[in-house]
Amino acid sequence: MSNIYEKSLAAHKQWKGKLSVELKCDLKTKEDLSLAYTPGVAEPCRIIAQNPEEVYTYTWKGNSVAVITDGSAVLGLGDIGPKASLPVMEGKCALFKAFANIDAVPIALDTKDPDEIIAICKALAPSFGGFNLEDISAPRCVTIERELKKVLDIPVFHDDQHGTAIVVAAGLINSLKLLKKEFKDLKVVVSGAGAAGSSIMFMLKRLGVKNILGFSKSGILNHDDMDAYDFLSKELLEFINPHNHHYSLKEALIDADVFIGVSAPRLVTSEMIQTMGKDPIVFALANPEPEISYEDALKGGARIIATGRSDLPNQINNVLVFPGLFRGALDCRATQITEEMKLAAAYGLASLIKEEELRYDYIIPSVFDPRVSEVVALEVKKVATQTGIARK
Amino acid sequence: MSNIYEKSLAAHKQWKGKLSVELKCDLKTKEDLSLAYTPGVAEPCRIIAQNPEEVYTYTWKGNSVAVITDGSAVLGLGDIGPKASLPVMEGKCALFKAFANIDAVPIALDTKDPDEIIAICKALAPSFGGFNLEDISAPRCVTIERELKKVLDIPVFHDDQHGTAIVVAAGLINSLKLLKKEFKDLKVVVSGAGAAGSSIMFMLKRLGVKNILGFSKSGILNHDDMDAYDFLSKELLEFINPHNHHYSLKEALIDADVFIGVSAPRLVTSEMIQTMGKDPIVFALANPEPEISYEDALKGGARIIATGRSDLPNQINNVLVFPGLFRGALDCRATQITEEMKLAAAYGLASLIKEEELRYDYIIPSVFDPRVSEVVALEVKKVATQTGIARK
Repeated sequence: MSNIYEKSLAAHKQWKGKLSVELKCDLKTKEDLSLAYTPGVAEPCRIIAQNPEEVYTYTWKGNSVAVITDGSAVLGLGDIGPKASLPVMEGKCALFKAFANIDAVPIALDTKDPDEIIAICKALAPSFGGFNLEDISAPRCVTIERELKKVLDIPVFHDDQHGTAIVVAAGLINSLKLLKKEFKDLKVVVSGAGAAGSSIMFMLKRLGVKNILGFSKSGILNHDDMDAYDFLSKELLEFINPHNHHYSLKEALIDADVFIGVSAPRLVTSEMIQTMGKDPIVFALANPEPEISYEDALKGGARIIATGRSDLPNQINNVLVFPGLFRGALDCRATQITEEMKLAAAYGLASLIKEEELRYDYIIPSVFDPRVSEVVALEVKKVATQTGIARK
Repeated sequence: MSNIYEKSLAAHKQWKGKLSVELKCDLKTKEDLSLAYTPGVAEPCRIIAQNPEEVYTYTWKGNSVAVITDGSAVLGLGDIGPKASLPVMEGKCALFKAFANIDAVPIALDTKDPDEIIAICKALAPSFGGFNLEDISAPRCVTIERELKKVLDIPVFHDDQHGTAIVVAAGLINSLKLLKKEFKDLKVVVSGAGAAGSSIMFMLKRLGVKNILGFSKSGILNHDDMDAYDFLSKELLEFINPHNHHYSLKEALIDADVFIGVSAPRLVTSEMIQTMGKDPIVFALANPEPEISYEDALKGGARIIATGRSDLPNQINNVLVFPGLFRGALDCRATQITEEMKLAAAYGLASLIKEEELRYDYIIPSVFDPRVSEVVALEVKKVATQTGIARK
């Protein structure tokens, strides 16, 4: 693993940035200049001034996304600040291009004040077709995303929350097909109640799961410690842990159907897996080191195992969703990303593996399956149009 | 001319944006992903977190410029707002690429509050190597630029102010060589006291001109109307119009050596040119229709005529300066754009035409002269290094 870091550092030094801005117009003659710039450019300006929606016809707005961070929760590195987060943001933009041909711009902000981040995004909105919020710590990321969704007429999506949740949902949909189980009968234990964990729990609820137990760093989310919780944990407690259990993680896992970890390495043992219900599903997504190693999960009797790692089967990778999701939203000029669109993305992604192809170690398509972003885009666009979110 | 507008509109519709974001790295295999994104990308992040200056080594920051506007003073169209300004901002970014291989991003802001624009640029600063302010109305543009220069450690440049002033300076330097005149002996009349006009007058002062008369829309800038002026006009009056004349533009032009117009069409007549001193220099830069037509200026006896138009000799075009200026500033990691660097750009640009090549209708190189941005970059970099502005 240390080798990949050295190689990546050397590669980054050579690239000096993973992105470049390139021209779609010629600028070699006087006429080129007068078409792309003055005086000709005045004409599209005048048309857009008369009808602002025409900005989609004459500029890159309809195909551009700003990848916005404040550098407060970058990978597993934490609050490393805006400059140090730039390599990740460029990487994210590169993925947008490679997987959905979207022109994405990395923007790492030198402020952590949610109100200021909201004000900045509002001011930036005319220039972009959508915002992908990235690596902003919880619960601020939720505050920022909710407010922007309220005031802006372009898609806003916090990938760390919903990207992971959608891919997890797709993985679960296919797992249940294989194991002949239904969402409504499941007992699910979620370790992690931050950006990803909270969004996963909201998603589980929408999928019909009734019995969800959630854990934060300070233990099981319960109704007696409400005063200590942020607004997000309080919202989760409106539907999780209805019987107000005070279990340890070990106790909670007894008879559970599913464990989902978006938390920290080595929280779960083989022995704990052994106490789970029939055909345990274990999504251990802490990265690079999962809550339980693949081998230990297998040893404990896990039937289906997913991780965040590319060197193991069933990789839960956000790249499976955000490019196609934005592609679909941009193509139909959706005013926002709705819950219906997220569910459509999950079911679309899951549908790529036919029932007869499903295996315990193949519940999630590969990120290099060329159908992925296409199908996700198609399903997202379809439901956006059906639900009146599309403007085109 | 209507034809160019129709053609430009059609071209813009086809381009759907004049820019795209492209990859400098491969993203085709698992290893590609693990180098450009997780887990490998964590390493450059860690290095930058330890030493923020390394952001220049591992990201695109060192070659990227944000082109920032609020859409308040776009071309001759005025306050058309951020969306309608986007075609111009994309055009500007395209010029950055075509003439200096700089990755520029168009950012049109949905706010006109100078304090908010300043706060936003400060927050955006980690992501970019420099800011090109564009089409922001005076005097707010000056307030914004000055404050940003004070607080940021990257180049900030308002092209409408200084770009024009630098090219005008280069044109004058060569005009004086041809006409055997010296700056200190000139009487110069400037029509227009906004972004470009004010910067031109500051530049004239630095070039050694003693006798400057400036006109705004409400007439000659003078010491009796101070209460009516903004801070910028007040600053100009610290050195222009020292004898407190109350001339009309017609009266001011009598015996003048130079007329510079950055104002409005048809303010000057052949007859007025006839009253100027020996070998009149007329830079009539209102665009697309100048303060006096080329033919009328010629008829009035103007010796050297420059305009903003590409279909006439001696085009004063900002493209001659801003790409090379930023190229030079980025290459030496200058902390700002200083007066010395602007002067160096002017003298560098002027030097491209050898004395024996100079003609009345060839005082300014063509924008397609491939040496232009190279020489400007070189001279800017040289003086930045000499004056301790360079960090590299």
